[in-house]
Amino acid sequence: MKPIASLTFLAGAIALAAATSALAQQAPKPENLIKWRQSAFQVVAWNSGRIKASLDSGYDKTLVLRSANLIAAIANSGLGSLFAAGSETGKGWHDTTAKPEAFANPAKFGELGGEFAKEATELVRVVSSGADAAAVKEQFGKLQKTCKSCHDDFRNAN
Amino acid sequence: MKPIASLTFLAGAIALAAATSALAQQAPKPENLIKWRQSAFQVVAWNSGRIKASLDSGYDKTLVLRSANLIAAIANSGLGSLFAAGSETGKGWHDTTAKPEAFANPAKFGELGGEFAKEATELVRVVSSGADAAAVKEQFGKLQKTCKSCHDDFRNAN
Repeated sequence: MKPIASLTFLAGAIALAAATSALAQQAPKPENLIKWRQSAFQVVAWNSGRIKASLDSGYDKTLVLRSANLIAAIANSGLGSLFAAGSETGKGWHDTTAKPEAFANPAKFGELGGEFAKEATELVRVVSSGADAAAVKEQFGKLQKTCKSCHDDFRNAN
Repeated sequence: MKPIASLTFLAGAIALAAATSALAQQAPKPENLIKWRQSAFQVVAWNSGRIKASLDSGYDKTLVLRSANLIAAIANSGLGSLFAAGSETGKGWHDTTAKPEAFANPAKFGELGGEFAKEATELVRVVSSGADAAAVKEQFGKLQKTCKSCHDDFRNAN
């Protein structure tokens, strides 16, 4: 082996080791991925409940905007990364309720995730615009439909 | 009792019943409050980890902005409402790690929560401005200090 080739190989091996290390750093354990996604959806549930309660008992724009902002931030956070390969089964706070289909059909799963993000972002826009409670309720209904359609296909009842 | 007074009383009683009902609707169970706050802080941990990993291995503005947006949305969501009276002890995903001081000293607790929101909002501004990784890292450090100071005073190690 010529010295230059040897050096190239060495550099390649070092780069590979660094990349492997970075990959290891970037690949959280499945139990953490499951815990984080369960937490994220629990925060969505908390804020969906706040929006519903506010619409049912006198509309509080400030509270609904905070809640909508948080749901949109979650929906746009890159949730798909929490469903990485290796996290098909396992336990976070509890056993995952994700169906195998979420991993078998990432294109459809991603499409529904995109719908969730779109309607959540639109809810922030509607609330921010100063629309009345009826308009907010209508958009909130559209957002809830995206939750349901994804749950129907990709979540086991828990 | 004069008819008008009787009617006034009746209206008052109905209003009280409605208010009580609304209050019951607006007062979630302590175990839900604890579960929601544990979930919210777990989402903060997930996103703090993503920001740290990105700063440690080549700065990815898009990923850091998503993460910062989500932390800021949580910090500005009205987290204090998740520490309502009655949730001093109990179990969400696990036994609460909030110290009694969080409930005994709401002014200080709220002040530290305000610092958290301020630095999280500033992180979004810094990242959005297109600042370099060093500037983002500096602001992320300020944000992390607000986490630590609140944990020191108000959270038991878990």
